[in-house]
Parts: sequence; structure tokens; C-alpha cells
Amino acid sequence: MNETLPDTIRPIRFDGGALYLLDQRRLPGAMRENRYDDAGDVAAAIRDMVVRGAPAIGIAAAFAVVLACRSAASAAAADWRAQVERAIAQLEASRPTAVNLFWALDRMRAVLAACPSADEAEVRTLAEAQRMLAADIAANRRLGAAGAELIEPGRAVLTHCNTGSLATGGFGTALGVIRSAWAQGRIREVFADETRPWLQGARLTAWELLHDGIPVHLLCEGAAASLLRSGQVGWVIVGADRIAANGDTANKIGTYGLALLAREHGVRFMVAAPVSTIDFDTADGSGIPIEMRPESEVLELGGRAIAPPGARGWNPAFDVTPARLIDAIVTELGVVQQPDRARLAALREPIAAQ
Amino acid sequence: MNETLPDTIRPIRFDGGALYLLDQRRLPGAMRENRYDDAGDVAAAIRDMVVRGAPAIGIAAAFAVVLACRSAASAAAADWRAQVERAIAQLEASRPTAVNLFWALDRMRAVLAACPSADEAEVRTLAEAQRMLAADIAANRRLGAAGAELIEPGRAVLTHCNTGSLATGGFGTALGVIRSAWAQGRIREVFADETRPWLQGARLTAWELLHDGIPVHLLCEGAAASLLRSGQVGWVIVGADRIAANGDTANKIGTYGLALLAREHGVRFMVAAPVSTIDFDTADGSGIPIEMRPESEVLELGGRAIAPPGARGWNPAFDVTPARLIDAIVTELGVVQQPDRARLAALREPIAAQ
Repeated sequence: MNETLPDTIRPIRFDGGALYLLDQRRLPGAMRENRYDDAGDVAAAIRDMVVRGAPAIGIAAAFAVVLACRSAASAAAADWRAQVERAIAQLEASRPTAVNLFWALDRMRAVLAACPSADEAEVRTLAEAQRMLAADIAANRRLGAAGAELIEPGRAVLTHCNTGSLATGGFGTALGVIRSAWAQGRIREVFADETRPWLQGARLTAWELLHDGIPVHLLCEGAAASLLRSGQVGWVIVGADRIAANGDTANKIGTYGLALLAREHGVRFMVAAPVSTIDFDTADGSGIPIEMRPESEVLELGGRAIAPPGARGWNPAFDVTPARLIDAIVTELGVVQQPDRARLAALREPIAAQ
Repeated sequence: MNETLPDTIRPIRFDGGALYLLDQRRLPGAMRENRYDDAGDVAAAIRDMVVRGAPAIGIAAAFAVVLACRSAASAAAADWRAQVERAIAQLEASRPTAVNLFWALDRMRAVLAACPSADEAEVRTLAEAQRMLAADIAANRRLGAAGAELIEPGRAVLTHCNTGSLATGGFGTALGVIRSAWAQGRIREVFADETRPWLQGARLTAWELLHDGIPVHLLCEGAAASLLRSGQVGWVIVGADRIAANGDTANKIGTYGLALLAREHGVRFMVAAPVSTIDFDTADGSGIPIEMRPESEVLELGGRAIAPPGARGWNPAFDVTPARLIDAIVTELGVVQQPDRARLAALREPIAAQ
């Protein structure tokens, strides 16, 4: 049955010793891959949003560690461990909010610790990164199916930002749920916030959905309250950049407001994310660092000024939605309804047993 | 004291038998006036948003009636009344939501009814339109002062869309309150939603405020919930396109969501508008027609596609904020706290007595 699911986009691939990232800043106008041989360049690509989306950032960073090992191996560097660790530190500094980045780099560190040489490290980190990529797609397939089951047929859904193939290894988190639910005929229509300032909804989500034959209506964030009041939407479905141990969820700026508006109008609110997005070491949302992005992202669009000289911009990239506003957190290991610390902690049991 | 208020922009003027409108689609990049000799061209300019903002639309339409009278007079048309009435009908069809348009045209009809000739009509409608323009500026000065008094010093305010000199005859409604409060030192900072899809906040509000020396931070609509949660903002202050008899208020799309978010965070919510924006003939918000604007406004920006081909857009231009979410409606005739039908009706008394 999975074969019939709409899923044809892959943003990250490793081939012939190089990493290729689909340049998401150029979509939907141009579909172009950039080639990377250097871990530092990948860190810059993450910071500059060539690749974005919490799971995709983690996977790209993992492959960047492979590149660092490869450089150290080809230079036969005596201090190869220090070289690779410097690359990892650079990657960790690229973006602060998405926890998948730190999770992926910790996994690579664990692999490195067991490697006797840079050559061996290149082989083993590559295998681990490929495993991580495949596991992410498989996880999204599973969580997509689990989330779809929550959706009673006949109404529309609203999503925010991009949480699809482009934001992950493939298939997507919230868009994975939407792909599954669409294939099962559970969704009448997809609405997508355009998601200023980067317009991920307009540029990426609409492109992905149409690419896979799923029709979509875009709206400006300001129209969401009217849409939710209209009764057309049964669920708001979003991804996550970091879920604290109590269920508080950091996600693209605008998510918290959407969650409040959904609650006000009796619309249910779903967060779809792999377990790697849950940060069990952070007690609640107040401990999640929120990245402030450059003012220019608000003051310009596509390099052109939209505001007069002298205007300032206030540009937090994420916000935190309290767990009380979330009806379900959907992961590859199960669905957590009315999430709280205890219910989320129960997800860890199968992880520990894996 | 009024002399010291920051107020240097006038979007509408009538000179030498022609109407000049500052082309607001070109701001802040270019400051250019368009000249109009024909009422039908003014109707098109209203529809295409050369001029926008409920009070400004009403005033522009009033001057367009003068142009229609002038054409009829110069042609010495026997059916001059029918000609002018056709122009009025065209103006009425330009935009459906802002009630000031219909209010202004009704006033012009009353003047026309008493005119024996087209020549006389041209003179009298011009006098009435000029009176309307001057009265609007005076009303905004009064309501600006009244609204400012509600603001305890020391915090920031958040506004939406453009409600300034550009949206009115001059000085502005919500921005009039902000101008007055700023001049009195009651506002620590002004935040302005960029206001997609037309970006009136980024292009017009920021431009007006900076033009008059008031600093401003722009934010994307999605960031408003985080800003309101931060405790920096004491009041959200907006204008109105139509206020129903019970206080339900139609305003730029995004206002309703803002009002809900303000209430959730204990931030107060002010609607600033002249009494001409109150539609006593419409019982509540359900009776206000909401204009759906072209999908292209969401799918393109400045003529460039931001969404892929095949994407649809959902683009209501306004929403309705229920009266229960409004702490104060501020008019030139007084402040109505916790507005309802009876309290708003009491405003009419002084009107009837004028």
C-alpha cells in the first residue's frame, strides 16, 4: 500500500563522496542541487537555509560529518579526531532551535568514538548517516499512517510552514500525515499558510503537494482565524523543531497563534514528528532556545526592499506552543494524545528496548 | 498643541478641477500622485487600491462625484442627473466592505437632490467633498486625542494594516491615536504587522511613521502571538472598515485573530474610527459583506510568482471581530468602552443634535 502514496521528492543524497542538497531557497522557480565536499560549507548551507526543516538539518549534518572524516582521511591527518570535532562544533553552531541537529551529531560522535582511524570513520559514519536517512523516511511513513487514522473523513486540514519531503529525509512529518490521509480519502482539501517571512508554505509546501498531485489552497497567516471559524477545517497539522519533555513544542513562528485559534474554534491540533525531535533533557518550552533571524528577512523579499529605509524588523524564527493546546503528538513509535510528561516518557520504553 | 503632532502626509487633494491621489501601490519605493478627471477612473483606482482605507475611499469617491458633475456641466447634458447617478453606481460597485464609501455617496446624493443644474451641482458637491475631507482630519485629531488618553505610559502598542494619513483624509484613525500617544510620551515603541498580502504595514505604516519621526518595528503576522505573550504590548490598536450596530467590526484580514490573541494574553484591544464607519443599519457582523480579492494577490508579490503554477489562493480581504473582544471603540464623538448596541446607539444623539 505504501507504494501508492504520493512521495517523489528527495532533498538530500550522498553520492561519489559528495553531499548533494536541493537548494530550497530557489524553489519553486528552479530545482537545483548544490554539491558539498566540505563540512564547513554544509554548516553555512544550514544557516543560510539551503536545507531547512528539523529532520533534514539533522541528516544533512550527519553527512557533513562524513565529509569531515573523508577530508581527514585523505589528508592522513594525525589529529583527525580533533579535525572532525571542530567540524561538528561548527555544525552545532549553525542553528540553535531544532534538536534533531544535536541528536544527529551526538549519534555521529558515538560512532566516531569506536573508530580506530579516519578511513574507518569515513566508512562507518557514512553507513550511519545512510541508515539515519532511511530510518527517517521509514519513520515518516509510520507516523504518517498513524496520524491519518486520527482524521475523520470529510473535512479540510490546515498546515503551516513546510514539513514535507523537503524538511525531512523524505515523505515528511505533518505532510506525511497529509499524504497518507489524502491517499485514504480522508481529506477534502488542503489549506497551507504561506508562512512568512520565508514563504515555505507558498514556495515549498504548495510545490510538493502539487508535484505529487494533491491540490492546495494558500492563505496568508492573517486569514487563518477566518478559515478556522468557517468550520471547513477539522485538524491543524504541524511539524516540530523541538518537543520538550512535557510536550511543549517549538515550531515555525506562527504555530503558537494557530494553536490558540484552533482551540478557540474547536479545531483539533496535531504535532507530527519523529521521536528524535523530542528533547527529554529539556523539561519544558521555557528551556528551548528561540533563534532570532536577521531583520532583513522581514524587511526584504527576494533581495528587494518591501519596507522603507529606517524600519526595523522583529524576526523570531520559532515559537513555543504549550502542550495543553496540543491534542496529539504523532511519532513513529505511537500517538500521544493530550501530551504530558508521563505520556511522552512512555514513548521511550520501546526506544530503550530496540 | 495640535501643531506639534507629527502629521505631514495628505493622500487626496482636489486642485484645478482634477483629483490627485497618491498612488499607494508604489509606496514606499516611489511617491507619485495620479491625476483623475473621470469618475469611472476613480472607481477603478479604488478597486485597484491606488487609494485604500475606509475613510480615504469615502472621500475619494465624494470627489469623484464632483468630477462626474463637472463632466455633465461641461457637456451641458440634459440628463445630467442620470449621468451622475451612473457614476455613483459605478463607485458603489468598486469595493463592498467599507461602509464609508456608501455613507459618502449618500451624502453626495443628498446635496445633488437640492441642485437645480449641473453647474450648481459641481460647485456644491465640491464644497461638500472639501468639507468632508476637512471634517475627517478634524475627527481624526479628536479621536486620536481621545484614544491616546486610554493608554497608560510605558509599554508598546501593536497595529495592523495602515490606518494613517494614507487611509484617511489625514492624520489617521488607529495611527492617529498612535501619533497622539507618541507625542505625549505614552508609547515606548510601535510594532506593526507587515499585513499580507498587500503589505500595508511594511510599505505604508512604516513609511508614514518614519516620515513623521516615529520609530517602528515590523513583524510578520505569525509573530504576533509571541509578541503579545512577551508582555511588551499594552494595547493592540486597529482601524475599521465597517462597525455594525452592535460593535462587531470588519477590518483588514488578520484583525479577528489578533483580537483573540490579545484577549488570550490580557492585552487590550482598541478600534479607532470616525462615526461614519458605524453602520447602524447592519445589526451585527454577520450582515457585513466580506470582499474576496483575487487569488493572484496571495500567489504573486510585486508581479512575481511566489507559489508554483497550479496553486490556488484563498484571499478574503477582511474579517469580523466580535464586539465582545473589543475593549474600546474610539470615535470623534467619544469613547465607547465594552461596546454593545445600546452604548453605540448613544453616540448618535450628539450626531442628531449637530
